[in-house]
Formats: sequence, C-alpha cells, structure tokens
Amino acid sequence: MDIESTAQEKARFCGIACGSAKALPDMLKAKVISIAKSIMKLEQDDPRRLIHSLKVGLALTLVSLLYYARPLYDGFGVSGMWAVLTVVVVFEFTVGGTLSKSLNRGFATFSAGALGIGADYFAGLFGKQGEPIVLGILVFLLATAATFSRFFPRIKARYDYGVLIFILTFSLVAVSGYRVDELVVLAHQRLSTIIMGGATCMLISIFVCPVWAGEDLHRAVASNLEKLASYLEGFGGAYFQSHEDDGSGVVSKDGKSFHQGYKSILNSKNSEESLANFARWEPGHGRFRLRHPWKHYLKIGALARQCAYQIEAINGCIDSDIQASQEFKSKIEGSCKRMSAECGKALKALATAMKTMTDPSSTNPHVENSKAAMKDLKFALKAASLEDEDFLAIVPAATVASILVEIVKSVEKISEAANELSQLARFKKVEPTVSPEKPQQLLHRGIIQPVLDADSNDNVVIAIHEISTDSPENEKPGHQVPKPGQRFMEV
Amino acid sequence: MDIESTAQEKARFCGIACGSAKALPDMLKAKVISIAKSIMKLEQDDPRRLIHSLKVGLALTLVSLLYYARPLYDGFGVSGMWAVLTVVVVFEFTVGGTLSKSLNRGFATFSAGALGIGADYFAGLFGKQGEPIVLGILVFLLATAATFSRFFPRIKARYDYGVLIFILTFSLVAVSGYRVDELVVLAHQRLSTIIMGGATCMLISIFVCPVWAGEDLHRAVASNLEKLASYLEGFGGAYFQSHEDDGSGVVSKDGKSFHQGYKSILNSKNSEESLANFARWEPGHGRFRLRHPWKHYLKIGALARQCAYQIEAINGCIDSDIQASQEFKSKIEGSCKRMSAECGKALKALATAMKTMTDPSSTNPHVENSKAAMKDLKFALKAASLEDEDFLAIVPAATVASILVEIVKSVEKISEAANELSQLARFKKVEPTVSPEKPQQLLHRGIIQPVLDADSNDNVVIAIHEISTDSPENEKPGHQVPKPGQRFMEV
Repeated sequence: MDIESTAQEKARFCGIACGSAKALPDMLKAKVISIAKSIMKLEQDDPRRLIHSLKVGLALTLVSLLYYARPLYDGFGVSGMWAVLTVVVVFEFTVGGTLSKSLNRGFATFSAGALGIGADYFAGLFGKQGEPIVLGILVFLLATAATFSRFFPRIKARYDYGVLIFILTFSLVAVSGYRVDELVVLAHQRLSTIIMGGATCMLISIFVCPVWAGEDLHRAVASNLEKLASYLEGFGGAYFQSHEDDGSGVVSKDGKSFHQGYKSILNSKNSEESLANFARWEPGHGRFRLRHPWKHYLKIGALARQCAYQIEAINGCIDSDIQASQEFKSKIEGSCKRMSAECGKALKALATAMKTMTDPSSTNPHVENSKAAMKDLKFALKAASLEDEDFLAIVPAATVASILVEIVKSVEKISEAANELSQLARFKKVEPTVSPEKPQQLLHRGIIQPVLDADSNDNVVIAIHEISTDSPENEKPGHQVPKPGQRFMEV
Repeated sequence: MDIESTAQEKARFCGIACGSAKALPDMLKAKVISIAKSIMKLEQDDPRRLIHSLKVGLALTLVSLLYYARPLYDGFGVSGMWAVLTVVVVFEFTVGGTLSKSLNRGFATFSAGALGIGADYFAGLFGKQGEPIVLGILVFLLATAATFSRFFPRIKARYDYGVLIFILTFSLVAVSGYRVDELVVLAHQRLSTIIMGGATCMLISIFVCPVWAGEDLHRAVASNLEKLASYLEGFGGAYFQSHEDDGSGVVSKDGKSFHQGYKSILNSKNSEESLANFARWEPGHGRFRLRHPWKHYLKIGALARQCAYQIEAINGCIDSDIQASQEFKSKIEGSCKRMSAECGKALKALATAMKTMTDPSSTNPHVENSKAAMKDLKFALKAASLEDEDFLAIVPAATVASILVEIVKSVEKISEAANELSQLARFKKVEPTVSPEKPQQLLHRGIIQPVLDADSNDNVVIAIHEISTDSPENEKPGHQVPKPGQRFMEV
C-alpha cells in the first residue's frame, strides 16, 4: 500500500514536472501578453505618458549634441556631461514639476557655487595645512544645516530639490577647489551647461504637448465632484429600490461603478497637494492666469474628501445586515431621494461650472432644493407615527436619513467654496440666455403625508417663507418663483 | 472739513510709517524668535532629524577624504566627485530608503554602464559618420522606453530611482564613449567611487543611530490603533455626558486632543505605503526578521482608516444641531457606552500587543464583549417603547448607535488582521501568568429593560449560548466564565 502510493506520488510528480516543462513556453507567452496588455492599458489610461517619454528621449538626444558637435565640445569639454545629467534628473511629467526642478537647480547651483568659491577663498587664508580642515568643517556644518532645513514642511514642499542641489554643489565646489585651480572657469562652465540642460527641458515641456499641473489639478477637483455627484444621484434609487426588489441589500446592477468611483477621493490629498505645489511654478496658460488661486482648490478638495467620508459611512448602510422596515422607508423615501438627487445635481452642476469656468451660482437652486428636502424630511420624521413599528428595523433607514442631512450640509459648503473660487479666479458670469435652461427652479416640493394633524401643512408654508428670506436672489424677475399653489407634489 | 480730514490722514499715515520703521527691528526679532521656535519644535517632535542631519554631514566629510588624501586622489582622480554626488543624493532618513537608493544606484550604474559600453561598440561598427547617429537613436529609444517603464506602479514603487540612474548612466557612457577613449577605465573608476559613496552611506545609516523604516511602520500602525482607541474610550462619556451637562452638544473639556488624534489616520495611506516599500529593503533588525510580513501592516492600516472614516461620521453626530431626546438616549446609553468602551479597550490591547510583539488573542474578550453589547443594543432597540417620543429627536442617537455597530464590526476585522499578523510574524505567545490580569472576562452584561414582554430575558440567554460556541477558547479552565446568575448588571 505504501509502495503503491509512493509510485503514484512519483507518477504524479513526473506528470506535473513534464506538464510544467511543456507549460513553460505557454507561461512565457502568457507573461509577455500580460505585460503587453498592461503597457496598452497604461497608454490608454493616459496617452500623455507615452508622449512624455518621447519628450524625455528628445531632450536627451538634443543635449547629447553638446558632445557630438565639435565646436560645442571644444567650448564646454567634459562639463557637457552636466547638461545630460540635468535633463535626466529635472524632466518631470508636468510643466510645473519641470520648472520647479529646473529653477531650483539653477538658483541652487548658482548660489552654492558662489558660496563654495567664497569658502575656498576663506579656507585658503589658513595655509596649506589648515585649508582641508577648515573646508571639511565648513562642508560638515553646511550639509548638516541644509539637511535639517529639508524637514521644514514649507521648504520640503517647494524647495526640497533646491536644497539638495545646494548641498551637492557646495560640497563639489568647495572640495574640488582644493585641487582644481581654475575654479571660476569650471563653475561657469558647469552653470552654463546646467542652464542649457534646464532650458532644453523647460522649452520642450512647455511647447511640445505640455502637461500643465494646474490644469490637471483643476480637472481632478472637478472630476472628484462629479464622482460624488454620480454616487449621490444613484444612491436614492439603489437604496430604496434594491431593498424593494429583493430585500437582500444588494445595490443596482450597474452599481459597481457607481459604488467604487468615490473611493479614489478618500486618498486624494497627497496628489492634490503636489499638483498645487507644481501649479504655482507655472506661467499663465490657457484659461488660467499667472496667479490663479491654486491654493483654493485644496480647500474644495478637502471638502470633497469630507463628503466622501460621509458617503463611505452611508455606503456601509446599504450593505447593513439589519433589515430595514419597508413601511418606514416609504415614509422617508421621497425626501431622502430628493435630498440625494438634488445634492448630486448640485455637485454635477458645480463640476460643469468648474470645467467650463463659468459662474457656479446656477447650482444654488439645487442646493436650496436639497435644503428644502431636508426640512421636508424633518417634518416627515416629526409626523411619522411609530406605534406599530419595530424600532430596530427603523434604525438603518434613520441613519441613512441622518447622514444624508450631513451630506446636504457638506454639499452646501462645497458650493460656497466653489463660489469663492469663482470670484477669486474671475470665472465668467453666465449669460442670461442660459437661465431658462436651468433645471427646475422649484423651491419646495412638499410631501403630503398620510397626515396626523392638519398643522403639518402650515409648517410647509413656513418653510417656504424661510427659504425665500435666506436667498433673496431667487426673487429676481427672471426667475420663476412658484406660488404655493403651483407646488410640485411627489409621492 | 476736507482739508482737515486730509491732514488727519497724513498724520495717521506718518504715524504708521514711523511706527513701522521703529517696528522693523522688533519684527525682525520676532521673526528670528519664531524661526528658532520652529527649529526647536522640529527637533523636539523627532530628535532623530537632527541626528540624521549630522549623519549626512559626517558621510559627506568622510567621502571628501577621497579628494583631500593624495594617494586616494591619485587613484580616482576627478571621479571622486561621484562619491560626493552619491552621498548627497542617496542618503535618506530611513535605513530602508538609503539601502533602496544605494542598491538601485549601484545596480543601475553597473548594468547601464555595461550596456553603454556595448552600445558604443555596436555603434563603432557603423564607422565615424554613422556612429553618432546610431548612438543618438539608441539613447533616444532607451530613454523613451525606460521613462515609460517608470509609470508602472510596481516599478515606480521600488525601482524608480534605479531606472532614473539607468537612463543617466547609459546616456553618459554612450555619449562620452564617442570622445573618451579609456571608457572601461572611466566606467570602472566611476562605479568604484559610487560604491564607496554608497557603502559609506549604508554603513553610517545602519550603524550610527539607525532609523529603521520597518520599526517606524510598526510603531505608526500601532499608534494609529491607539488613537482610534482613545477616541472610542472617550466617546461614550463625551457624547452622553456633555449633552446631559449643558445640552449644547459640546464635547468634554479635554475633548480637543481626543477629538483630533484620529484625523491624522485619514490621510495615512501614502506614508504607510512608502515605509512598507522601504522596510522590504532592510535586513533583519531588532525584533524583526528579514522577511517580516511588512505588507500585512498595510492591511491593518487600511482597516484602521476604514474605522477612522466611521469615527469621522460619528464625530459629525456630536456636533449635530438636532437635539437628541434625553429619554431615548438614556435607553441606549448603557450598551452604546459599553460598545464604544470595549472597542477602545480592544484596540488599545491590540496596540499594546503589537508594540510588545506578543500574541494579541488577549483582546478577544473585549471584542466579544463589544459584540455582546451590540446584541444588547439590538434588544434595547427592539424593546424600546416609542409611543411618547418625538421621532426627530431620536434620529441622532439612533445614528450614533448604528455607526457604533459598524465600528464594532470594523474593530473585529482589525483584531482578525492583527491575529493574522501575529501568526505570520510569529509574535510570542503570552505566558499564562498574564491571564489573571486580563480585564473582566464578562461575556455578557445584560441590561434589564423596563420590559415589554417576558421573552427578552430568554433572548439574553440565547445570546450567551451563541457567544460560547463562537469562541470556544473562552471555556478553557483558566478563564472565568461567568454563570448566567453572576451576570453583571448595568443601569
């Protein structure tokens, strides 16, 4: 029995071994195909990546001319190497990144070079014996101080590379100075080749298919608002319908994309901050002035993240294992759906306004509508009769309602921040011809509850009064303020 | 009147101007003091920063010896420069960072140098005219391909610097090859100085007050769990008491720190990932083996972030403007406080277990207790009589309860992940002497509700039965399983 099983084992092992030997070319083929696919995917996700790579190749080939062309070589000698080095290290994906690194490198090389020559002269005063000791101490002190300065958040954000090059150049110049006599000539050669390398990078990155960090930031923030919007627009339907359909807590069939989109916002802080840092180095381009308020985008980004955290919490409710009561859900369905939909519309309109750089005040009605729906919800909750309900089954739906209220507040803040941005960046005002196309200007769409008492209707009237005082611009002649009798009724 | 006011204006302007001229030294003084303060703060926050700066200074001074000492200079010539350059660029704050950059630089220089010499030989076959053209094409192709490869996330995470140096060295060698005859000697010199620079950095960073990325990651993840824990431990008291005290929705007086600590977790993803990337390069050190499961820390980190998102949502409820009903709150107070406190204790115990690298199974009772409290909450909610309540006032408290339920689930997941880590990393088992010190092993502390029907007591008994089957290790002889009669009664 033992022998038999060993023989079987052996046979199986051989089978696996032979199989895997045969499978090797197949595996290789599969590997190659998978690599090719991921290259294709990288390229399709953002075609600018391939273009960037070609630009780097171009810049590098251009500066190689310093070596190939004899007259240039005679002028610069081995220092031409520094142009190659500069191009490789300085060329970044965005214009802002390239400018930031080039300028940092240029200024740091210049100032550290000057300081290095000074240090060399100073050390020379101490005679042949003292010179290396003094230079060693100076290098140690400066390297220590400069390295420590890189821990300051402000320096780290904007001048990190400059400080690095400062240490590098100072050490090189101070140390070489001990050997090389023609220090000034060397420093001049080195600086001019670095300038040539840097200038090549800057020119190519600005004029050949430029990738502007500012534009990327602008688009990223707008697209984050869009992602939030599409979640919120889909949420009402998904939460209230899916439970009606099968009661299993699953989201709608196309739920996957609507489900996941917002998740990328949760960790967007770092990329937004680095884009904003780069954008400050960029000259005016396209629709952006030189001093475009890039910092303000970070504020909108932070508020969008805040909203995404709340969506993360509400998303947990969809998958909750506590079964919500259908009766109670139907009571809040109208106002919750409207809150979420109006928030979605407001965010979508804000995103569109940002993309087209027009005044986002057209989103105000949506924000007001969502706030009105929030008040409706409060009345619905106040009026809800709970005598026959199982309270445990109410909690999940109540939580959804409560988080939606927070989301409404959050969207209002986003809208305010976007309006501030519009003023700071002087987005163009929308022409009056656009206003009739605006989505319904309904200030209030009340729910007629299966009412407990006649007072609730009076409450609704008071709510309308509050809104109209909150936002007097809705009473402008061009707008269609619905009279109480014209109110659109849902449910 | 007009003239008078102009005169006044003038006088005021002069006053301001004179004042500001006088104030200038004061401002300078204030500026210097504020800079000094921020330096002190940086140093106090993490004294390792100053030590790191001193280490960089030391390494740089050491490699300068290559220039100062005549025998070394005769050996290496100007190539000594590359040692200085390597030290400045390669020396990172953590050992892992330094190792990653040094090794990347070493291997990239070696392989690109060899490839460059090959390319040079190949281009030489095309004659004096063809050589620069062929070399230009080769540099262009390789730079483009290598730059594109930097967009692959896996390459970007681990080999980004290596690819950069690869492009740099290949271009330099291929291009210089056209001029410099003794290419192999040059490449050899350059490689050996780079190795000397890299080795100096590696030795200093490992042996002089090392900062291990792995240890930082380990500590960061544990401290994140602690931050969550202190929020949750404080939450119950803050939410239920502050409302009782003044009803204004303000948190306890020491609330500020307990309020803000968890916020840093929300954006911890990038720093954790980069630490984990660096940690993989580090040799075994202290309590960590060579192949310590660093990747698993990212899993715990992600779960901790998930929990932080929920805390962010629950934190919004503290500041909510809707006033919660005291009556209803008192009904859920006991179980909610216990859920939050037990979650906090579980997380604190997990953090301690991680820090001491001991088996975290001692936290299981806390997790079980929080789950039991969750069940209590469900019974309390089921049993709650809602006839006289204003439902709107119940919603905020219900939301808190509902999010706490999600937090309990989240903490359970964190505990599972920490147990997995403990197995993967072979944390040492706790000695049996520790077990009596464990916090109360109460499996279930039921609330006696002002009951609606006699069934609820039966339910509690069923709950205990469920728990004991869920976690059979609680029935070991050493543990004190409370009999149903001994149950601790709250409220």
